[in-house]
Amino acid sequence: MSTWGNDLKISIFGESHGPGIGVVIDGLPAGLPIDREELAAFMARRAPGRDKASTPRRETDRPELLSGVRGDVTTGTPLAALIRNNDTHSSDYGELASAARPGHADYTGFLRYAGWGDVRGGGHFSGRLTAPLVFAGGLAKQLLAREGVYVGAHIARCAGVADAPFDPVRLDRETLLRPGASAFPTLDAAAGERMREEIEAARMSTDSVGGVVECGVVGFPAGVGSPMFDGLENRIASIVFGIPAVKGLEFGDGFAAAELRGSEHNDPFRLADGKVVTETNHAGGILGGISSGMPILLRAAFKPTASIAKPQRTVDFRENAERELVVKGRHDPCVVVRAVPVVEAAVSLALADALLGAKGYEGLQNRK
Amino acid sequence: MSTWGNDLKISIFGESHGPGIGVVIDGLPAGLPIDREELAAFMARRAPGRDKASTPRRETDRPELLSGVRGDVTTGTPLAALIRNNDTHSSDYGELASAARPGHADYTGFLRYAGWGDVRGGGHFSGRLTAPLVFAGGLAKQLLAREGVYVGAHIARCAGVADAPFDPVRLDRETLLRPGASAFPTLDAAAGERMREEIEAARMSTDSVGGVVECGVVGFPAGVGSPMFDGLENRIASIVFGIPAVKGLEFGDGFAAAELRGSEHNDPFRLADGKVVTETNHAGGILGGISSGMPILLRAAFKPTASIAKPQRTVDFRENAERELVVKGRHDPCVVVRAVPVVEAAVSLALADALLGAKGYEGLQNRK
Amino acid sequence: MSTWGNDLKISIFGESHGPGIGVVIDGLPAGLPIDREELAAFMARRAPGRDKASTPRRETDRPELLSGVRGDVTTGTPLAALIRNNDTHSSDYGELASAARPGHADYTGFLRYAGWGDVRGGGHFSGRLTAPLVFAGGLAKQLLAREGVYVGAHIARCAGVADAPFDPVRLDRETLLRPGASAFPTLDAAAGERMREEIEAARMSTDSVGGVVECGVVGFPAGVGSPMFDGLENRIASIVFGIPAVKGLEFGDGFAAAELRGSEHNDPFRLADGKVVTETNHAGGILGGISSGMPILLRAAFKPTASIAKPQRTVDFRENAERELVVKGRHDPCVVVRAVPVVEAAVSLALADALLGAKGYEGLQNRK
Amino acid sequence: MSTWGNDLKISIFGESHGPGIGVVIDGLPAGLPIDREELAAFMARRAPGRDKASTPRRETDRPELLSGVRGDVTTGTPLAALIRNNDTHSSDYGELASAARPGHADYTGFLRYAGWGDVRGGGHFSGRLTAPLVFAGGLAKQLLAREGVYVGAHIARCAGVADAPFDPVRLDRETLLRPGASAFPTLDAAAGERMREEIEAARMSTDSVGGVVECGVVGFPAGVGSPMFDGLENRIASIVFGIPAVKGLEFGDGFAAAELRGSEHNDPFRLADGKVVTETNHAGGILGGISSGMPILLRAAFKPTASIAKPQRTVDFRENAERELVVKGRHDPCVVVRAVPVVEAAVSLALADALLGAKGYEGLQNRK
Repeated sequence: MSTWGNDLKISIFGESHGPGIGVVIDGLPAGLPIDREELAAFMARRAPGRDKASTPRRETDRPELLSGVRGDVTTGTPLAALIRNNDTHSSDYGELASAARPGHADYTGFLRYAGWGDVRGGGHFSGRLTAPLVFAGGLAKQLLAREGVYVGAHIARCAGVADAPFDPVRLDRETLLRPGASAFPTLDAAAGERMREEIEAARMSTDSVGGVVECGVVGFPAGVGSPMFDGLENRIASIVFGIPAVKGLEFGDGFAAAELRGSEHNDPFRLADGKVVTETNHAGGILGGISSGMPILLRAAFKPTASIAKPQRTVDFRENAERELVVKGRHDPCVVVRAVPVVEAAVSLALADALLGAKGYEGLQNRK
Repeated sequence: MSTWGNDLKISIFGESHGPGIGVVIDGLPAGLPIDREELAAFMARRAPGRDKASTPRRETDRPELLSGVRGDVTTGTPLAALIRNNDTHSSDYGELASAARPGHADYTGFLRYAGWGDVRGGGHFSGRLTAPLVFAGGLAKQLLAREGVYVGAHIARCAGVADAPFDPVRLDRETLLRPGASAFPTLDAAAGERMREEIEAARMSTDSVGGVVECGVVGFPAGVGSPMFDGLENRIASIVFGIPAVKGLEFGDGFAAAELRGSEHNDPFRLADGKVVTETNHAGGILGGISSGMPILLRAAFKPTASIAKPQRTVDFRENAERELVVKGRHDPCVVVRAVPVVEAAVSLALADALLGAKGYEGLQNRK
Repeated sequence: MSTWGNDLKISIFGESHGPGIGVVIDGLPAGLPIDREELAAFMARRAPGRDKASTPRRETDRPELLSGVRGDVTTGTPLAALIRNNDTHSSDYGELASAARPGHADYTGFLRYAGWGDVRGGGHFSGRLTAPLVFAGGLAKQLLAREGVYVGAHIARCAGVADAPFDPVRLDRETLLRPGASAFPTLDAAAGERMREEIEAARMSTDSVGGVVECGVVGFPAGVGSPMFDGLENRIASIVFGIPAVKGLEFGDGFAAAELRGSEHNDPFRLADGKVVTETNHAGGILGGISSGMPILLRAAFKPTASIAKPQRTVDFRENAERELVVKGRHDPCVVVRAVPVVEAAVSLALADALLGAKGYEGLQNRK
Repeated sequence: MSTWGNDLKISIFGESHGPGIGVVIDGLPAGLPIDREELAAFMARRAPGRDKASTPRRETDRPELLSGVRGDVTTGTPLAALIRNNDTHSSDYGELASAARPGHADYTGFLRYAGWGDVRGGGHFSGRLTAPLVFAGGLAKQLLAREGVYVGAHIARCAGVADAPFDPVRLDRETLLRPGASAFPTLDAAAGERMREEIEAARMSTDSVGGVVECGVVGFPAGVGSPMFDGLENRIASIVFGIPAVKGLEFGDGFAAAELRGSEHNDPFRLADGKVVTETNHAGGILGGISSGMPILLRAAFKPTASIAKPQRTVDFRENAERELVVKGRHDPCVVVRAVPVVEAAVSLALADALLGAKGYEGLQNRK
């Protein structure tokens, strides 16, 4: 289902080419001031048409707030937002109705929904559905910021080019938020430039590339989360794998940890100004599902955009016949650029949910 | 929390050195015959003391079935199982009470539970809690097998040694189940032998190693799962990250997909005996959160065992003082060997849960 | 929260005087044909301004379908509906901002939302929020009808006047649906006439009345539901108590059962045309939380409308001062008339949810 | 399912004549001291064989704590309790295997579980399963008491005899807890005596009686709960309808409210010592799903015990033949006496769950 959350629930709806898309957010504490400008800026980072590395589809994607807000402050009751679809070229998708685009959910969606799904533009499976996710995550981000928690991300790898990594121990708010402020979210501008060249090269050869987004969190209080199935890792994973094209997720050293010895991987505890910290942070700020107070660090792997203009072999699943397919329409040669705020949004929602469990709604709402 | 599941729920309880550990499983369809011998054999694969690569702690780990079964058939009402703890050396853990073992949840658990947690042997955070998970997953495995679905896993990497991978397209039941049948679960016996040597070398140097478990599934029907937050990947992730020491998870090509171009990664559809299949399986059998009918493939990264006998620097969090710590007790130099059935169990539970959502309890129960 | 459901989830949003209200419905099976005319007719039964027994506020309440439907058939992905608020007199509510209307949630909502709630017209607590509930329930009703399950209700009591009850054994579809087809939903037209007179009398004396809605279900398959906390009674109760003004709920004989002896209350089983039935139906079609195949019967008690034009003593909770209050605005002297379809909607959602659990989505969707 | 709760989850297992019954409680805050004597006394109130008004089956019902407690303090991780079944006469139930006991879930359970359910003594549907519910509720009660919240109940009606009601405005802790302290839980001892006589008369005529339990709560903070589906009423209803034999539930005036006019039912607000209170309390302390700070009051209707020794007509559902049945075994002629602590337990769990949502686990746990 498209519903997620324990104490902070979201329910996302919409299809790429239907009347609109949106989200209902239930459980936001009351009295949270919303900085609409900041929210719009955050959503703009995901919006298409911002950079030539992205799809030329242009949409305002300005969400209409239908409930849950008075003035610029949350009421505490469900907050609903609607984004109208107004720039759709459905005819581009005519032939997709029964020819499965490789790498897409056309065929699996056909089976899952017994042939009734809206397949235009990917329907409910479209990357466009990340717009309401980013909206919801933008609110969670502002909620976290009021608690001194900051969430940022950057492109760690793209098309074989690596950015500089976040420093797992010394990561600060300024460094964390810097990539998001630039048009191409990397720490190292030169690496970003090379990525853009590679993306452009992929586009020129009617192909696409994937990449890895690294997300960091500073200021998250230690001691939040739970063991087993309700740990921060489970909670983050349950939402991050809801982002289209994500095929992998790792925390701290992740897969690299599997290559280390315990003596290399264990983070020694020490005191810094009377506070317990760790000298290294291979664990990515989470031990036993619970935050340690160190920066939280994770990486999500994105497969290359499935929609490519190259001719591909496929099957028409209604006619049960093999055929060749050329995917038309406008598509990003690389979704990773726009995926950066989506990962930030997903992680922010997961952490806000966990914080609500720890502090309750009373602990997070602002008294009038 | 230690509760998981939608249509098939599990609630795990217990501490490493308390009276016992166990699980309540709610939502199992009625009329499922339980092969107790097979279940015991599956649990034995996780049990300690089986191989010198594992901790010398020996336990029978024979679960007592408290409810939900008559004869050897499920009743459909909650099935509870209890495993008594009977071989505990609590005194080994005396000094841990306030010295945080690096890489463990001692300190985060101390904060989370305000100092009241049972820290002996890791308490509720202990790897021992995977025994009831394997028990529950063993039942899910048998449920799936009745539907023609088979789940198997092997050590894909350990201590820098790689096993042969599962063939993502041609994987069959026989190959899938072979590693689980051997004492050291690899496809390539020679690779297994080298891993054992490396593990032994780590033990000799009072150190530990990590590794990667690859899990495969054949026979899972196409069209099961849901988009966004209830996809097979989310559901599997939400339980796999509940296994202690897991720091990464990837499906299909996973992180390697991020390095490919779309034309390389997209799996072309074709017909085989009139059935829609894909020529390659970079997607790992899941598109848009929904099964494609191809083998499901995933890999989980395990960090090296945190408990090592080497002296380590740490902090006594009650006394707020730095100190040196030598972890006593009996510990696996490598948890990955015993983690193989745990991953199978977690994946089996996730898939059984998804199948129950698709077919309902009526569709999965056996009429008497 | 305003989110409900296991296999069929609804998330309701909106405030009485905000931009709009609506619902996201997640889990509807694909391929359900929607009879929009029937849905509109069902919603019209709840709409204000239909009868002089109701509030003069007139709204079209025509929901816009934002997603989840193509043509007139569900896609299986989340279905969202938006109802714009277009006839609001917010100024009527000016003085309510801090004077607690007796019988309303003004004061408790003020505390719950730390003063940030939208209090105009009751905000999210308004009876107007039952419009999206009725919309969602109307879809569930159509889903159930395709399975041969029919849900109907009538005013069992109002202002001291009793309608004829549903026959718990012989209730048929025709009788069940008759009250809903009339402007004033009773079985006995004369009783209905007397109720209208009493309601009118209450209005004339600037007062209000309450009542009881009886709901019946025929055709629901036997054997659906679960023991303990997931029984049909729990599931129905969890949503019916979400209808504003409901203060009581009973199944079968309900409170009257408490006065009977076992020999009077037990329903003897017998065979009718080879089928197991009960001779009487004191149980209201539910035994141990599970349907027996007999008609399901329940009654919900509604308190009298809290908004009355009579001067009332109250407290200004911001100024912490006692005062007198005259509630302005347009209010039903009796909500029970319009509550009849709301109860039908809530019960339909609960039963559709239970049926999805039993049959799975595959068992309820229509193959294209 | 037999799993319940949001922030405080319980998972109940067991069958009347299986090895044992029990519960896993997940989400209890850490550092809650458990008064075992008080807990035992509370459980003793539900235990059979205490009064001749109850079944002669005698069990110690002493729960073994398997996890979640060290010494007498909760650890915050799942707390599991096991109660062994040790006094069972399964042979008494031999003939029930296929003859549906009227008023019982034998037949519906047979359908639900496809014939595989454990029917001995009602299996999982047995009233015996309320023992773990009372255990869990006893812990919730102690948690609430630490917050100044007290929950008590009494038999409001039984066999046509009425007890004095709780005073909805002036109810205090002392009055509230008095009935529970006596062997026969009424406020008015004379009424209790008459109830006992009626119960005894019912037993003598091999029959049974039902009744109504009234439950009150004092000290619950105002402003806790949520609108729509997560209100205190929904939450309480979702668990109270899990108590076997409950067929009705009402809050405040409940069904009687349906007979009142708004001017009679509305509770005027006023100030008492600077605090907002209501003059009357027809609402039962809940407005819009949220606590008002006044005593919370509710009543649950219990049908008469279904197991009666009188011959009854029924159907053998395996042989599909009508027959006469004489229910053997030991049965309460009135479950209401023992149901009093069960209602207290259910209400305590619901309120503790709501309080955890408001205050978070940090707000409710005791710092060591």
